Amino acid sequence: MKSVEKLTKRLEEGKHICIGLDSDRNKIPEYLRNDEDGILKFNRNIIESTKEDVCAYKINLAFYEKEGKKGIDALERTMDLMPEDVFVIGDAKRGDIGNTSEMYAYSIFEHFLFDSVTLHPYMGYDSLLPFFEYEDKINFILALTSNAGSLDFEKLKLDSGKYLYQEVINKAVQWNTKNNLGVVFGATNPIELKEEIDALKSLFVLLPGVGAQGGSLEDVASTFYSAGNKKFLVNVSRAIIYSDSTENFASSASENLKNYNQKIKIIVNA
Amino acid sequence: MKSVEKLTKRLEEGKHICIGLDSDRNKIPEYLRNDEDGILKFNRNIIESTKEDVCAYKINLAFYEKEGKKGIDALERTMDLMPEDVFVIGDAKRGDIGNTSEMYAYSIFEHFLFDSVTLHPYMGYDSLLPFFEYEDKINFILALTSNAGSLDFEKLKLDSGKYLYQEVINKAVQWNTKNNLGVVFGATNPIELKEEIDALKSLFVLLPGVGAQGGSLEDVASTFYSAGNKKFLVNVSRAIIYSDSTENFASSASENLKNYNQKIKIIVNA
Repeated sequence: MKSVEKLTKRLEEGKHICIGLDSDRNKIPEYLRNDEDGILKFNRNIIESTKEDVCAYKINLAFYEKEGKKGIDALERTMDLMPEDVFVIGDAKRGDIGNTSEMYAYSIFEHFLFDSVTLHPYMGYDSLLPFFEYEDKINFILALTSNAGSLDFEKLKLDSGKYLYQEVINKAVQWNTKNNLGVVFGATNPIELKEEIDALKSLFVLLPGVGAQGGSLEDVASTFYSAGNKKFLVNVSRAIIYSDSTENFASSASENLKNYNQKIKIIVNA
Repeated sequence: MKSVEKLTKRLEEGKHICIGLDSDRNKIPEYLRNDEDGILKFNRNIIESTKEDVCAYKINLAFYEKEGKKGIDALERTMDLMPEDVFVIGDAKRGDIGNTSEMYAYSIFEHFLFDSVTLHPYMGYDSLLPFFEYEDKINFILALTSNAGSLDFEKLKLDSGKYLYQEVINKAVQWNTKNNLGVVFGATNPIELKEEIDALKSLFVLLPGVGAQGGSLEDVASTFYSAGNKKFLVNVSRAIIYSDSTENFASSASENLKNYNQKIKIIVNA
């Protein structure tokens, strides 16, 4: 199944929640922490209990890299667990000169077999092109993020009168000749999201910041659905995967996911 | 030996060349390509023959990540080869929300034991702080890069009249309370470098773009030395490590490095 088809099918079904598998050995249930394969077992249970209702999984490479080859092994084995029909984002935030970006793109799409990646725009078009050339994959470029530091550069005003993040969106729209681009837009910026909703219509949008960071799922869903746009994914990590620290963590994750889906359904039907 | 001491000592000795160990299985001498440990052997020979005359090594993580856990194993073993007194940069171009950046910083500084890292500024201060908190390490923030795409965002004019890369330098200076920051500034921008030379004086500067990309070592060295500033590292990758495709590659690398050092010496004495 093609990556873009996996994603589109779930979005059409009203499934918009992306579960961030930020699996940290210090935060998984205690009985798994000293288990050599603890992270893998944690991931397997979360995936098994949520794979029908989720839109996508997002894997943060930092959480695996920090354990060196042992961590990369856990990542490779986690990727082996992924159901054939679920879209998986490699949250890598890469971006480098062309020949290096080629290596990263190979790593993400051909070695680890992710369906999608997150990218830093700073170095411009040729730093991103090696990713864009994978026609079937979806490339999410950072536009406006959910952290306080978004004020430092992303929200600087350009002499054109636009903000830098608006120029990133503008460029992403121009570069989207293969319909395989998206942007990352923090759910903590609901006003800016409303302002950009027309500009975003040709792009997939990945929205972190709901849950622990304070963004509102209802705001996001109503902004997109009001515009007749279903091409959005709302990432939730900690509020789903760490909502229960007992052996029941997986069923609790599933329940939380269903609650999020239900909240979106209410907005859609309103 | 502290990271910053390793770097400062070599810079004081007039050693400014950073060798980029962009070791690619398809570019190393043919007799090593099918050797399981080919990249490691290549690196060992380059390091052995250049460790006295080099300023630093820069390792591009992409070249290792792309081979998954096998590649990470080669990276870990390459790090084991590094002489105690040579500064090693993890060219990772990371930058993410705080708790993720903590993981990346741990990975770079505590797992792989790099002396230094390269960082993407786009997400702002809190995305970089976990790196800055390693007081003894040097953090190079991307300012103006050597690729064509630097025109897309880095060279956009802000409503303050400054360019975005100038604002990044400005912020790096402000954030440098621990004297452990630097910037990446492409050697392909000699005019901009001259303009910024005063602004850069409190920062270490890593300059890629000499050699294959067309930047001039003489321009860079004379700009810095004219300003009485020795805090610069010029990265050369392909022009040193791939200058000879026979079994003599290591002595050829050493000879090329000595030639670069000699060119700098002539400038300094001029």
